[in-house]
Amino acid sequence: MRDSPLHVAVVGATGAVGEEILQCLDQRDFPLTDLTLLASARSAGKNIHFQGQKIKVKELTHDAFDAVDIALFSAGGGISLEFAPSAAAAGATVIDNSSAFRMDEDVPLVIPEINPEAARQTTRGIIANPNCTTIVTLMALAPLHREFGLKTLVASSYQAVSGSGAKGIAELETQVAALGRGEAIEPDVYPHQIAFNAIPQVETIGANGYTKEEMKMQNEGRKILGTDTLIASVTCVRIPVFRSHSISVSADFEKQPSVAAARAAITAFPGVQVRDDREAALYPTPLDATGGDDCLVGRIREDLVFKNGLSLWVVGDQVRKGAALNAVQIAELLT
Amino acid sequence: MRDSPLHVAVVGATGAVGEEILQCLDQRDFPLTDLTLLASARSAGKNIHFQGQKIKVKELTHDAFDAVDIALFSAGGGISLEFAPSAAAAGATVIDNSSAFRMDEDVPLVIPEINPEAARQTTRGIIANPNCTTIVTLMALAPLHREFGLKTLVASSYQAVSGSGAKGIAELETQVAALGRGEAIEPDVYPHQIAFNAIPQVETIGANGYTKEEMKMQNEGRKILGTDTLIASVTCVRIPVFRSHSISVSADFEKQPSVAAARAAITAFPGVQVRDDREAALYPTPLDATGGDDCLVGRIREDLVFKNGLSLWVVGDQVRKGAALNAVQIAELLT
Repeated sequence: MRDSPLHVAVVGATGAVGEEILQCLDQRDFPLTDLTLLASARSAGKNIHFQGQKIKVKELTHDAFDAVDIALFSAGGGISLEFAPSAAAAGATVIDNSSAFRMDEDVPLVIPEINPEAARQTTRGIIANPNCTTIVTLMALAPLHREFGLKTLVASSYQAVSGSGAKGIAELETQVAALGRGEAIEPDVYPHQIAFNAIPQVETIGANGYTKEEMKMQNEGRKILGTDTLIASVTCVRIPVFRSHSISVSADFEKQPSVAAARAAITAFPGVQVRDDREAALYPTPLDATGGDDCLVGRIREDLVFKNGLSLWVVGDQVRKGAALNAVQIAELLT
Repeated sequence: MRDSPLHVAVVGATGAVGEEILQCLDQRDFPLTDLTLLASARSAGKNIHFQGQKIKVKELTHDAFDAVDIALFSAGGGISLEFAPSAAAAGATVIDNSSAFRMDEDVPLVIPEINPEAARQTTRGIIANPNCTTIVTLMALAPLHREFGLKTLVASSYQAVSGSGAKGIAELETQVAALGRGEAIEPDVYPHQIAFNAIPQVETIGANGYTKEEMKMQNEGRKILGTDTLIASVTCVRIPVFRSHSISVSADFEKQPSVAAARAAITAFPGVQVRDDREAALYPTPLDATGGDDCLVGRIREDLVFKNGLSLWVVGDQVRKGAALNAVQIAELLT
């Protein structure tokens, strides 16, 4: 633990991820000495309780980062693009939860269990927090990559509405309640009804037919794992689950992983647990991961299509390891 | 159309699929002259309205098939194993919706758009209706297989609770209502809470780590498409959707299919529609397929992992094309 003062700012403090960041800072006894909470003018003035103190949320401005050491941004890509450079210029290290800087060459993209050394290589004062689906998937694949060499993966996601923030959660709740009363619903946050439905689109569809979200697995995965040759074919689907993401993965490796060796490798890795027993029909569901720190892996079996392949099912709390917890863990690397 | 009498029996007439079979027989003006409705002793005596007539449900017994020409079974594998041979011995052609006879060599396994000729090769008087997830997936892949030669596929399913019959639908409804009242829920039909959750297990898990449901895609797919070399690596997942199944598919082919050629091949095939426009973000959701006859395909794009690969998303009404409609279509092949 450090003795010197440590001033942390949370940008987007009143959002779903911002609130979870405050919980993580509290639960993990993060060694901060000052805490500044920033949000839009609309949310400024609200009081938030943190470790027995009442802290007033301030409006985010370019000069709000004076004397801030670490600024955790979670207010969308536009806000990050506009204000993160100001925070960095004021001397803060920015940990940004948006996609704005993730693929910039001089911005580290970090999952602390996988590539912590990258966090110390920031020259620009900005460190990016990876995409939530990518984080959860890589928490299962990174230990396998180290032992067997990950070549390709085919993945389909089952993504919770928390990925769209508080408004996604509210939309699912509102639609379920309205349908329960026999009322018609009008989609707002999502392009189609999300209650009792599945929407095979997360973010915009690009020229190659894949969504931005789908391409993140390959692009961010390469950067985090340090392998330029990873190929990932992904389908991202939003389903009516509140909080944790699940991913069905078929992966091919350089070397043949046995199921037993895969279980052992994942078990030995921090931040991820094996929940896998064929005879007992044990495997994790999104509800099992919700509120927890660890990603959970089950249904580990030899893939039938890939030569050195494994199929598996991984779940992780999207708000926590997929966003807030990972950001706070990055901050811990800096203390 | 035939002029001779045609006596149809529906076994499991009061179940979810049985009810839908009656709807299909009605809507398609199936040329029946007599209709016998059979169910367990518990449901016997109920009256069901069909085309203006009130028909009393009779108890299923071994001698219930006298003078029946076509017997549509949808009452579970145990009932089929016990009573289908009696129906066939009495001279009826059985169309069985369970998995009991599907892989028997002398039982045709038929999707009428794909292998109608097989229906006429029944020597035992039993024709099997394929698994619902397999039907929906193959409705998209069969036209591609004909032109490009299907080799392998990796698929993840998003299966509706209707796949477990009326009791699956009731369990989702009950859990959503209870959670809305803040009450605890107790899973019954499914091993875990299905409301706002995803369960990566449909049927029992076998020695190779795959569930029975997952292996059906390869086993039934080979038989229906007439290719012994098809390899399918599948993950079947139950999600809180009421009625239509969705499947995310990555498939590899002998010949390279362009996206345009794939769209054209699927469009030209009966029983399946392309709903695919990248710029307009058009793709089908399970709600779009519900109540309709056709399977719907979208998100068609070059697969990034497979050399001659395509990725796509297919949805189909599980109760209808996945079960009742396909069975009635098989019956139509016999008239």
